[in-house]
Amino acid sequence: MQNTYQELVRETIPLTQYMDWQIKTLSPMQIHSQTMLAPNINIHGTAFAGSIYAAAMATGWTLMKCWYDSNQYQAELVAAEANIKYLRPVTSDFECLAQITPESDALRKLISRLEQNRSCGFPVKIEIICQNQLCAILEVSFVFKCS
Amino acid sequence: MQNTYQELVRETIPLTQYMDWQIKTLSPMQIHSQTMLAPNINIHGTAFAGSIYAAAMATGWTLMKCWYDSNQYQAELVAAEANIKYLRPVTSDFECLAQITPESDALRKLISRLEQNRSCGFPVKIEIICQNQLCAILEVSFVFKCS
Repeated sequence: MQNTYQELVRETIPLTQYMDWQIKTLSPMQIHSQTMLAPNINIHGTAFAGSIYAAAMATGWTLMKCWYDSNQYQAELVAAEANIKYLRPVTSDFECLAQITPESDALRKLISRLEQNRSCGFPVKIEIICQNQLCAILEVSFVFKCS
Repeated sequence: MQNTYQELVRETIPLTQYMDWQIKTLSPMQIHSQTMLAPNINIHGTAFAGSIYAAAMATGWTLMKCWYDSNQYQAELVAAEANIKYLRPVTSDFECLAQITPESDALRKLISRLEQNRSCGFPVKIEIICQNQLCAILEVSFVFKCS
């Protein structure tokens, strides 16, 4: 599954190729990606804030895309808003982790609305990890737009 | 001035080269940048949310860097937190605009603290414009860290 989505993301979001963003594991409920530091450095030699955000956004988007493909819903997936907190510098290659919590109210609402072909928002939290330390947290409000 | 900073950003944040991010005008109080759509597309053929954020972050960072260089302060400039709202799709090359409001309380506080060699936060708003329409707004909390 991860190869299919790796290919999809690299082809449709070419920035992820340049960034050397890769899926390590993927299921419809969780994702783990890795991004190389070298193409993503800033003036301090650590990861550029924009790269950290873009790697985490690609990670969250891929998880939600995989989830809704696996459920065969028809919707357009877009980001409406996002907040990122930078906790410490990212000094090496880094990982992004995200999961969908089963049995949550947000997930129940999303499923209910998509089954009625109605648009719905859904929040996803992505953790950015470097050398076993949490370095940043991205929270994205995605919207599934039904036509 | 813009050529110096264009060179600085392209050399120290290589992602901005790939993204084809360019400074159109720059002074210590305002900046106007342009980013090409082609390297920054997503699955919908519009600009990837991560690219929009990274272009706007590079724009805000460059403005603050230029401002504090021109005032000859000694500090490390980092992003602590950011919020972005996506209002409409970015369907073509796009521009980022940001300015520092003179005479604001935030600026007075920043100057006062930097003159005492004390760290201080500073908020910057960056507007992302495409075809004369406001498509996204990024608000970044930068921190000037004094040692």
